[in-house]
Amino acid sequence: MSLLVTGTIAIDSVKTPFGEQDECLGGSATYFSVAASHFTPVRLVGAVGEDFPDEYLKVFDGRDIDTSGLEKRAGSKTFRWKGSYQGSMNEATTLETQLNILTEDPPVIPESSRDSECVFLANTAPAVQIQLLEQLTAPRLIVADTMNFWIENTREDLEKLLQKVTALVLNDTEARMFTGQSNLIAAAREIVEMGLEFVVVKKGEHGTLLMTNNDECFVLPAYPTDAVKDPTGAGDSFAGGMMGFLDQQSDINLPTLKKAIAYGTVVASLVIEDFSLNRWQTANRNDIDKRLNQLRDVITF
Amino acid sequence: MSLLVTGTIAIDSVKTPFGEQDECLGGSATYFSVAASHFTPVRLVGAVGEDFPDEYLKVFDGRDIDTSGLEKRAGSKTFRWKGSYQGSMNEATTLETQLNILTEDPPVIPESSRDSECVFLANTAPAVQIQLLEQLTAPRLIVADTMNFWIENTREDLEKLLQKVTALVLNDTEARMFTGQSNLIAAAREIVEMGLEFVVVKKGEHGTLLMTNNDECFVLPAYPTDAVKDPTGAGDSFAGGMMGFLDQQSDINLPTLKKAIAYGTVVASLVIEDFSLNRWQTANRNDIDKRLNQLRDVITF
Repeated sequence: MSLLVTGTIAIDSVKTPFGEQDECLGGSATYFSVAASHFTPVRLVGAVGEDFPDEYLKVFDGRDIDTSGLEKRAGSKTFRWKGSYQGSMNEATTLETQLNILTEDPPVIPESSRDSECVFLANTAPAVQIQLLEQLTAPRLIVADTMNFWIENTREDLEKLLQKVTALVLNDTEARMFTGQSNLIAAAREIVEMGLEFVVVKKGEHGTLLMTNNDECFVLPAYPTDAVKDPTGAGDSFAGGMMGFLDQQSDINLPTLKKAIAYGTVVASLVIEDFSLNRWQTANRNDIDKRLNQLRDVITF
Repeated sequence: MSLLVTGTIAIDSVKTPFGEQDECLGGSATYFSVAASHFTPVRLVGAVGEDFPDEYLKVFDGRDIDTSGLEKRAGSKTFRWKGSYQGSMNEATTLETQLNILTEDPPVIPESSRDSECVFLANTAPAVQIQLLEQLTAPRLIVADTMNFWIENTREDLEKLLQKVTALVLNDTEARMFTGQSNLIAAAREIVEMGLEFVVVKKGEHGTLLMTNNDECFVLPAYPTDAVKDPTGAGDSFAGGMMGFLDQQSDINLPTLKKAIAYGTVVASLVIEDFSLNRWQTANRNDIDKRLNQLRDVITF
């Protein structure tokens, strides 16, 4: 197929028990693209402000990432996020958010990318996700991310979005909030029934749950590691690994979805071993495949 | 080998979002014994008061459970626990505890059971666990359970116990509390280094983590189900399934430990589908094996 991602390119400042990094590269589309590019060519759509340092774009160099949809907008400022993680680092504490360019018109998908068949709509307002989706001419596999804010404040839009996409990824707290179901299996089932083919519930250190509209279920623990330095981008990297693998498959079925989620899991486990996208300076597809086999060993009985 | 369990036989009153049951059979040794008896003969050691209804003992009828170590003590009252579960039912809220007989001398292990090789010391004061252990003549595999109270209040005794046992089972909150490590892999590793061959960390709905003194790791999700009615006894039933299977193995190694934990997982998933031990009125070894295969399917990619 052909994989497109719409999302943010951000400047993050992050503090964890293992250090801190000021003004480093972040953003959902960034993490997603680099993760997915280990599997398949990626088309990135997003916008930054005129303050965005060009050297940050070096992360895309030498990777199969089409950045023609990356708009540098004059007069605008890049989205910035400042956060910290404590303890088990399962959830970030947001210290500051400067939405900046996110409050303006979303970027436009370039003509050359509108035929993308495989699409990841990273977290943003569901109405914007729908608007982006409508620019595509032949989407076949559309996965959207969302968050608590949209579940609470724009639920109607979100439910509309679910009629138009193949699948949703969200975390366990959000799945419970969305449905009012405390049991996660029940919650996942209820979300699928809103009009999806499948849902992927991310449980952080506890791994991932897949539920399909055939009531097929897959549960996978996270890759067991104590080498976590910075969980930022784990979810988008997970989605990148999953979608990157799926984009290369001729059929989306339970076995390919399972393997895609396993790839997403190990890709996420790599990126969180360092701040920002630094881990990708050395980690490559061989490291991903090696870790996939380790993960399989670790769960097999 | 030959499997012995020391623990409580209790009268529980439990309320969950799915109903409530007053004055029903509970207790760690009860849940453990019935679970383990699907795999191997079990010797039960515990004490109840003169108030304990004989009809509750029917749960042991027709099972390979030696109750000669079950003492009915005149003038004493049975241990009672009253609790409730809310939401995701991951943790119980204790409404009332009547320690009663637990404040008296612990039961004595009958002469005929002192040659037991495989031993589960269910949760109680570590000093009592040591005292019980000292009555055994030839223990080879000794697994102890513990809880936050002993970690906080009798840490020295607990550390002494760890020098005398093969393994510890505890939950994730307790593992973090015990070590001060927020990363669970790091916490498990640190606990093993206190003198154990392995540790099993129970994560409730998120499954189980095994860490061995060879730094071997096994992670297993819980059996995915939305049919949870009452989580009481899940941990002790898990231990019963695990130890029951291990008692039948000629060697304790990573493959047998993995399979034992998988059996513990499915046994626990069955017992929580009904209040008290009611699920065992119908569920049998066939159901356990069938679910083991389902669990394997659900995690395989």
